[in-house]
Amino acid sequence: MKPERLFWVWTLAGLACLPAADSSVPAPSNVRGGEYPRIHSDLRVTFRVNAPAAQSVQVLPAGSDSGMGKGPFEMTKGAEGVWTVTTSPVRPGFHYYSLVIDGFPCNDPASETFFGWAKQTSGLEVPDPGLDFYDAKNVPHGDVRMHWYRSKVTGALRRAFVYTPPGYDAKPKLRYPVLYLQHGSGESERGWTAQGRANFILDNLIAAGKAKPLIVVMDHGYAMRAGETPKEGARGNEAFGEMVVNDLVPAIDAAYRTLPRRNQRAIAGLSMGAGQALAIALAHPGKFAHAGAFSGAGRGLDAKAAGAAKFSLLWIGCGTEDRLHAGSKAIHEALDQAGVKHVWFEGPGSHEWQVWRKHLAAFAPLLFR
Amino acid sequence: MKPERLFWVWTLAGLACLPAADSSVPAPSNVRGGEYPRIHSDLRVTFRVNAPAAQSVQVLPAGSDSGMGKGPFEMTKGAEGVWTVTTSPVRPGFHYYSLVIDGFPCNDPASETFFGWAKQTSGLEVPDPGLDFYDAKNVPHGDVRMHWYRSKVTGALRRAFVYTPPGYDAKPKLRYPVLYLQHGSGESERGWTAQGRANFILDNLIAAGKAKPLIVVMDHGYAMRAGETPKEGARGNEAFGEMVVNDLVPAIDAAYRTLPRRNQRAIAGLSMGAGQALAIALAHPGKFAHAGAFSGAGRGLDAKAAGAAKFSLLWIGCGTEDRLHAGSKAIHEALDQAGVKHVWFEGPGSHEWQVWRKHLAAFAPLLFR
Repeated sequence: MKPERLFWVWTLAGLACLPAADSSVPAPSNVRGGEYPRIHSDLRVTFRVNAPAAQSVQVLPAGSDSGMGKGPFEMTKGAEGVWTVTTSPVRPGFHYYSLVIDGFPCNDPASETFFGWAKQTSGLEVPDPGLDFYDAKNVPHGDVRMHWYRSKVTGALRRAFVYTPPGYDAKPKLRYPVLYLQHGSGESERGWTAQGRANFILDNLIAAGKAKPLIVVMDHGYAMRAGETPKEGARGNEAFGEMVVNDLVPAIDAAYRTLPRRNQRAIAGLSMGAGQALAIALAHPGKFAHAGAFSGAGRGLDAKAAGAAKFSLLWIGCGTEDRLHAGSKAIHEALDQAGVKHVWFEGPGSHEWQVWRKHLAAFAPLLFR
Repeated sequence: MKPERLFWVWTLAGLACLPAADSSVPAPSNVRGGEYPRIHSDLRVTFRVNAPAAQSVQVLPAGSDSGMGKGPFEMTKGAEGVWTVTTSPVRPGFHYYSLVIDGFPCNDPASETFFGWAKQTSGLEVPDPGLDFYDAKNVPHGDVRMHWYRSKVTGALRRAFVYTPPGYDAKPKLRYPVLYLQHGSGESERGWTAQGRANFILDNLIAAGKAKPLIVVMDHGYAMRAGETPKEGARGNEAFGEMVVNDLVPAIDAAYRTLPRRNQRAIAGLSMGAGQALAIALAHPGKFAHAGAFSGAGRGLDAKAAGAAKFSLLWIGCGTEDRLHAGSKAIHEALDQAGVKHVWFEGPGSHEWQVWRKHLAAFAPLLFR
């Protein structure tokens, strides 16, 4: 077998060994039986769609972090109205994209959808030949639970995703620390597992003894007070912090075997969720001893307040190609100057899920020590 | 307030009281902030989409069970490229649909997606003014867990959705009966909760004392033996029964506090899943004492074998407007003629989720008695 035909492949459900007719394989983010998009061994990607009546069809990556360029990429119409394009090599990781049919961005029917950009969006998972830390390996797997609870702040039922570690059910007297982990703008409580593979990252860390078994609560980062509607231009997340502290934490402590105290409780998030995590932790330093900001610490972190909060762990990370990198690094430097103990983590990558997977994998082992 | 302005509204997360500027409200199946489709008090639906460059835009219901007709329905282009159409009254319940942009069926960006028709598809939830049995009421809610397990039959990791009833975590010594519950063709393990609202149906039945607390396992109804690929024209579910009996049931009995015996184990499903449930129960009468077929019992049920299996409960249901109704009814009559005790359930409705919600609500109270 030639080197270019060796390829790691996993599906959304886990590792799978797929024989490739040529050196390309269906993206693991495709639906069952979805042959396209296909990923070549050099990480070029071929998209294909059947749209005989369309005048123009394009592939449009969301954002500019996929490595293939900004796009849109014109697809070429072939026999029987099948359109194709092969891109330049793509950055490994997860990328949102759309197919643009006569100017209308829509989903690729061959792809799973992932909630991002405030809608269900096609996603392209590109395996990284050098990384397996987020693969579904042959280790014990925790469950990811959809948990419904009533919020007094919003006056509505809400849904959180809750990771319970392997062994949680088998040892009904053991209690666990909790990490509250937030998604980014336009995403949802589904993001950290579907796009981020947080459960597999933690399964692997726990199996290797690198992270303490923990509960991870992933909620929907939007919340308005009961009866209020978002103001023009507002995000609609204005009551989120209040909701977390008054409703979510008590609901989780009531429903799960948590260690319900400050030094066993962490909060972190990515992008918008990073800002939310830091703001909540700083407003309630008696509730959270550990805080993490993945690619979004830039705005409004007061180094003095961060010092006064006496966090056991204050973790700030950003990809070096992220437009938020300079702001994040400035925060790190301000913390240094103020003598506030913290961890600063930088590495290659932009504003993208592959970076946040790495952030979680670097952050989780430092928690609850 | 005029009668036509009174309207039940719930979101995917639960009941919500939305003030309506006119008598229409956003469909509860819309994404956060999605204003369209909007449902009028007479159950007409207005669809709206921004597609300035498109030459034609249509709404296409999937199947013919929505009550609004077969379609496609032409949308009219208005100012700034916004297309709209208002349909005739729609049948309450859940309906898949697409927007057709210049001949290409794609998702409505304002709608959540639901896995059906072998892809992620837009869905329209139309509240039924007369029914609340599948609403998220103010009762204790069970969790729905994503559970990963390894299948020897398929050689891969699989994901099941598992409903654990309210109180499951609080009472760690209690054990529960199990219902294995299958989706239809082209759907997935997500269908019974996302489209079917099975968890809320069971929460309500359990809270009212009408159903025994139970675990419900919803798996993905497709499975091929390791190394095999689907034959031309085959469904790709050929190893499902073998997988259920050899891998899934043992995995569930190991991971959850089940009552691991015949009289505490049921299997049911809808459409393709109905056929699967009956076939598995009949092939393994020592494993399952209860079997249910929702709108799909037509093919291949041998009344004599069904009698020999001595089920505690054999339940057959079908909507009277379903093209499978005659076949299901014939099975019922054959069972009667053969003197095989069973429950026959028919009522208005076609081959659609609203019927299957009713089937589950009628079936679950009869289980494990």
